[in-house]
Amino acid sequence: MAEVISPLNVHGDDVGAYVEGVARAARTASRAMARATSAQKNAALLAIAARLRAQASDILAANQADVAAAGGLDAAMVERLTLTPSRVEAMAAGVAEVAALADPIGGITDLEFRPTGIQVGRMRVPLGVVGIIYEARPNVTADAAALCLKSGNAAILRGGSEALRSNQIIAQCVQHGLEHAGLPAAAVQVIATTDRAAVGALLAQDKFVDVIVPRGGKSLIERVSREARMPVIKHLDGVCHVFLDDSADAAKALAIAVNAKTQRYGTCNTMETLLATPAAAARLYPAILEALHGAGVELRGCERTRALHGKVVAASEDDWYAEYLAPILAVRVVDDFDAAVEHITRYGSLHTDAIVTENFVNARRFLAEVDSSSVMVNASTRFADGFEYGLGAEIGISTDKFHARGPVGLEGLTSQKWIVLGDGHIRA
Amino acid sequence: MAEVISPLNVHGDDVGAYVEGVARAARTASRAMARATSAQKNAALLAIAARLRAQASDILAANQADVAAAGGLDAAMVERLTLTPSRVEAMAAGVAEVAALADPIGGITDLEFRPTGIQVGRMRVPLGVVGIIYEARPNVTADAAALCLKSGNAAILRGGSEALRSNQIIAQCVQHGLEHAGLPAAAVQVIATTDRAAVGALLAQDKFVDVIVPRGGKSLIERVSREARMPVIKHLDGVCHVFLDDSADAAKALAIAVNAKTQRYGTCNTMETLLATPAAAARLYPAILEALHGAGVELRGCERTRALHGKVVAASEDDWYAEYLAPILAVRVVDDFDAAVEHITRYGSLHTDAIVTENFVNARRFLAEVDSSSVMVNASTRFADGFEYGLGAEIGISTDKFHARGPVGLEGLTSQKWIVLGDGHIRA
Repeated sequence: MAEVISPLNVHGDDVGAYVEGVARAARTASRAMARATSAQKNAALLAIAARLRAQASDILAANQADVAAAGGLDAAMVERLTLTPSRVEAMAAGVAEVAALADPIGGITDLEFRPTGIQVGRMRVPLGVVGIIYEARPNVTADAAALCLKSGNAAILRGGSEALRSNQIIAQCVQHGLEHAGLPAAAVQVIATTDRAAVGALLAQDKFVDVIVPRGGKSLIERVSREARMPVIKHLDGVCHVFLDDSADAAKALAIAVNAKTQRYGTCNTMETLLATPAAAARLYPAILEALHGAGVELRGCERTRALHGKVVAASEDDWYAEYLAPILAVRVVDDFDAAVEHITRYGSLHTDAIVTENFVNARRFLAEVDSSSVMVNASTRFADGFEYGLGAEIGISTDKFHARGPVGLEGLTSQKWIVLGDGHIRA
Repeated sequence: MAEVISPLNVHGDDVGAYVEGVARAARTASRAMARATSAQKNAALLAIAARLRAQASDILAANQADVAAAGGLDAAMVERLTLTPSRVEAMAAGVAEVAALADPIGGITDLEFRPTGIQVGRMRVPLGVVGIIYEARPNVTADAAALCLKSGNAAILRGGSEALRSNQIIAQCVQHGLEHAGLPAAAVQVIATTDRAAVGALLAQDKFVDVIVPRGGKSLIERVSREARMPVIKHLDGVCHVFLDDSADAAKALAIAVNAKTQRYGTCNTMETLLATPAAAARLYPAILEALHGAGVELRGCERTRALHGKVVAASEDDWYAEYLAPILAVRVVDDFDAAVEHITRYGSLHTDAIVTENFVNARRFLAEVDSSSVMVNASTRFADGFEYGLGAEIGISTDKFHARGPVGLEGLTSQKWIVLGDGHIRA
């Protein structure tokens, strides 16, 4: 394995047959994975981590070949594509951490006797085969493989073509770990062609692939949603709001507004619009907007907001819909609590929204009435994250309501089947 | 309301706009439904039940008009279409029973403190707008409306055109009950056109409709799966197995095999294939097959089975895949436990499968290794049912793994959002 691997030369008409072969092998491997014990899965994960560390120099060489061959990428994309010794170590450590997470598979809940005498409960089981489609970020390869493995699924990984050499050598390390633990290597496969038709071919394998998780930009996610014949766990926009009601505490409001906007600008759980009632705005906006402006945030507000701070430019209707992912904030004064919920419902993306309040009734109403995947009281929207929620790791954040919602950890890659225990029971 | 209602005269190009209007109104109504209290929802359900009883003669008149106008239906379809006084009473009683079920909405689970000091939990919320597409069975109209209402969803009902007059008057009763409880009438709407394009138009409303539940024959379900742009809770085949291992108790095996096959022939949880190890077959098949043959069941078996009973005709490969829904049974001798699981995995539909065993290890292995929506030990497959499982009612049985699996009750029409409670917490 000292050599840098070349991408497979599968193109044109052969791509469909190649991808179907990968999917079929994944389906077969998924049966063994569903039966794997926790000890086997953890042994595989630790062997993968060790192998990633042992092969670090080969991984870096493959990655350098990827970076050298990648033309036309902007600086941010090259940055995401590039591995360093510390990034390889972080990748290995991440895989080892997944070994420490509780195994969700096989857990039986709610096992209760029914009046007929049968005992009925639910057992947690893997979804089967998970397809992950992502951009040129080789660390996702190890990360996604580890989560699928621990949750008893087989994985098919299709990363950005620019990272194919890196992904292939990382996948070899994963397969080495699987085999070390007596599990099938085909439980984690990388689609080893740069032909873009491979994505379409994968999205058509609904016979063998149970769910697709796209991780990347909006155009990738929209394409996957449109073409996939199987369910998709997807993440679209994060247009997150913080709403200050009449009773909001000044110190909490300031801390949360500044943290939600400025702790990181490019993440989906960053606040994009700040709302306040007229009284809260008059009392709190001057100091908050001054702090945000001082932190370099461009402020775009309604007329009532502009009257409260000199550095606020006029917002247009489009600003209320915007996911800036940048140091820009839309700011609005809304008439009352109902108008805030109305604004969030109309313009928001139902991702993460927070209220700052000391009022018990408003806190309860906000939790009940705002239909977002994460709804918060007196906490920064930046907490919407699988690690912060205690999931241990996250395969993505779902903005759908069906199946998994919000941060998706191991449990989102599982399902529950019914089990019935009897003693010769028959239906009357 | 004493008159029989005429189907709306919406056809051709107008159908798309009409259905979009219905879907948009449902989306608006769904917000009020999500906020409705349990008391309001239960008041609506009881008012609906009362109204169905009060309007029974008008409902029967509308239904008679439907039956009179329905040409070309076979006897079974006419039977399903026809309402009687006792069926109207059963419909009303079913709606009242849903009022007695626990309200799933708003329940908060797993609310725990994280190391950062935030409290994170999950709150159960409605899916939003549920579309139900079904055949000419007017009782489904009241039944589906009640389940959607109780779970805080808005419903769009599209029943078979032959039942449109019945469905419209039932929907009027439902809307009367909703308004009586201060809830929007548009929370339950019947698509009031016989134009078949309405189904396609509904399946395209992914902006307003969160999930589609098709209830009916295979061709309906396949069409809905193919065309729907939103998630589908669907039920395909029920090719259910009972497997007798070496240790199977003779009395339990006989009772379960006979019950699973003959208690009802036309249901999805009826046994279609009986499997046994060679020793179990030699010991148990003669009496079981004699009993089934005596009950009028046609037996189609492998060579080893045929050697054990004189009335078994030769099975073809197709018989192992067959969902007979009739007094026919496929019977096979498999080499051992592994071969039984292999047979079920290969030929089954992952619906409901049972083992009859006294062996602890085999029971545990069967539960873990058979990947069906219901897996049973020493119980008849006929128990796979929402009422038997304690769901109180069922909107359908899902053969998918994603979201809901097996019998789907109120919980299957809900989702969970994350809630975060803090006291000014920000992310470090």
